[in-house]
Amino acid sequence: MSTSINLAVIPGDGIGQEVVAQGLKVLTAVLPQDVKLETREYDLGAQRWHRTGETLPDADLEALRHHDAILLGAIGDPSVPSGVLERGLLLKLRFAFDHFINLRPSKLFPNTATPLAGRPEIDFVVVREGTEGPYTGNGGSLRTGTPAEVATEVSLNTAYGVERVVRDAYERASARPRKKLTLVHKNNVLVYAGHLWKNTFDRVGREYPEVTTDYLHVDAATIFFVTQPERFDVIVTDNLFGDILTDLAAAVTGGIGLAASGNINPTGAFPSMFEPVHGSAPDIAGTGKADPTATILSVALLLRHLGYEEQAARIEEAVSADLAERDGTFRSTDAIGDALAARVAG
Amino acid sequence: MSTSINLAVIPGDGIGQEVVAQGLKVLTAVLPQDVKLETREYDLGAQRWHRTGETLPDADLEALRHHDAILLGAIGDPSVPSGVLERGLLLKLRFAFDHFINLRPSKLFPNTATPLAGRPEIDFVVVREGTEGPYTGNGGSLRTGTPAEVATEVSLNTAYGVERVVRDAYERASARPRKKLTLVHKNNVLVYAGHLWKNTFDRVGREYPEVTTDYLHVDAATIFFVTQPERFDVIVTDNLFGDILTDLAAAVTGGIGLAASGNINPTGAFPSMFEPVHGSAPDIAGTGKADPTATILSVALLLRHLGYEEQAARIEEAVSADLAERDGTFRSTDAIGDALAARVAG
Ligand SMILES: CC(C)[C@H](C(=O)O)[C@@H](O)C(=O)O
Ligand SMILES: CC(C)[C@H](C(=O)O)[C@@H](O)C(=O)O
Repeated sequence: MSTSINLAVIPGDGIGQEVVAQGLKVLTAVLPQDVKLETREYDLGAQRWHRTGETLPDADLEALRHHDAILLGAIGDPSVPSGVLERGLLLKLRFAFDHFINLRPSKLFPNTATPLAGRPEIDFVVVREGTEGPYTGNGGSLRTGTPAEVATEVSLNTAYGVERVVRDAYERASARPRKKLTLVHKNNVLVYAGHLWKNTFDRVGREYPEVTTDYLHVDAATIFFVTQPERFDVIVTDNLFGDILTDLAAAVTGGIGLAASGNINPTGAFPSMFEPVHGSAPDIAGTGKADPTATILSVALLLRHLGYEEQAARIEEAVSADLAERDGTFRSTDAIGDALAARVAG
Repeated sequence: MSTSINLAVIPGDGIGQEVVAQGLKVLTAVLPQDVKLETREYDLGAQRWHRTGETLPDADLEALRHHDAILLGAIGDPSVPSGVLERGLLLKLRFAFDHFINLRPSKLFPNTATPLAGRPEIDFVVVREGTEGPYTGNGGSLRTGTPAEVATEVSLNTAYGVERVVRDAYERASARPRKKLTLVHKNNVLVYAGHLWKNTFDRVGREYPEVTTDYLHVDAATIFFVTQPERFDVIVTDNLFGDILTDLAAAVTGGIGLAASGNINPTGAFPSMFEPVHGSAPDIAGTGKADPTATILSVALLLRHLGYEEQAARIEEAVSADLAERDGTFRSTDAIGDALAARVAG
């Protein structure tokens, strides 16, 4: 825990700008007086790409790397071909900074709408691998655009990459009251990657006898997400399965407006990056309808990562209390940010 | 539509035996007197593997190929290493018989339990590709079991394979009242396969101007499955995404006990295979607790495929009526089969 935070801010596209502003508002309000917060905003995303054709130039990458952490709003716009910004900017950051832990907590806060009948208790965290799997960009196409086209996508999995995320997940499970860790994969079909994941999971698990373990195929896991989400405590899974499961998790815990995430490099070799799970939602950009809570909860993860546990907890409690008192009347992006800033300062 | 049906039956493992017996009971009851039903049972699954080490020998495959259709119960047992039966038997059948349409209807029947609050109207069908994607067994591992292990899984996609399933999906959408087709993929990350799918989808779509189209990333699709399932009519997607989405679809429409599927080769070059989406559920095998409805609905798909539309519809109506009258008291596998057989005969 340092007495200064040198934060990179990438507002990005659509509602990114608006929600990040609220995240910074709450961050400023919660930080102790003696902690110096410096921020530098990076102009990255659709506008930059349209203007210059660049997604993430080396100079920006190099500059970003010297920050303590990165706060990102959202990336993506319908005016940019699908994949350009996702791969050229968002995934490039995750890979360049070796964010092998993609941390996505899911909690059903009081008084929030869940599509699930009976309001089950939901409080789990997905530890999604962030630097391997089908996200590595390994693939290609042959005879593209012809009736003889073949297109491939290669999922790359290494013992090195799997072990470090599995180990991190055991650590997190061991530190939680229920101490339960579920591996989600599809090892009855994806047998090569599946064996690597399962064997690593079993082997590392012997070092954590206090942790109860479970294995589920990804298809079965989606069933339990809606019928029995209370069975989950910590989940560890690959990059693609984690992507799918955390959107579903967000949906059952009150929606994508509340889902926070951290792209973490626990070694500290590179800055970690915190962002809401939601996208840039161009349809509501500028309307004041975006819920900044997911970004504000991502700020809590950021603070925890930097050692400000007390401040992180204060934000989470403020969100919980704020949600408990929401009465369904519309509050603008700004109003929610103000309310949470007031709570954490108070 | 022939006046005889030469059916292969693969009861398989766990509850497979029990549910298939009910499926045959209802099939016998619904068929017109003048249709001759011949069945041959194949001993395939965990027991056979334990006894002989075989999963699907060439002789069985050759014999199976001369049937009009296959009815399969469930495959898999904890005593067999994960993947052996799935890949050596179930997927081998799907691939050998070129079942490129994996058809999985999802309907929320009256009076069935859904975990979703508010009981949305759900009536869609997933057209899952069945012979490509990450299911092809292309992959491997290097330095297996060492800290330097690398494991890969390759998703193979061909214009040939994608176009035929996309075209089938447009045909199905065009024949339904709402005429809406949604492509689900992850083309912002899996750009090579994603482009092939999206381009094919757009190109073939120009031949079906009456069909409204939509595209969703797989992660976003899971959100809509629980928050807005009524937005779906026909969904076309790849093998793995289809696997995941149809388990989730089963969960929101009353559970895996009701979800039917057909592995279809529409050309008729090989027999198509019909099976419940659920697995072998060894924990309840032999207890009479298995719900045979999914198998019975799979028999309806089988009949429709063979041209017995009237009989297929009669089974579906019987299931709908039966579910509407279920009062929550326990009925055994056998009792449910009896009730449905009585209804379709009546
Ligand atoms: C935008 C996309 C590349 C990204 C992903 O697939 O990881 C998003 O869905 C997420 O979950 O952060
Ligand atoms: C058992 C398994 C190989 C299979 C699949 O993944 O296709 C099953 O989950 C299914 O959906 O039919």
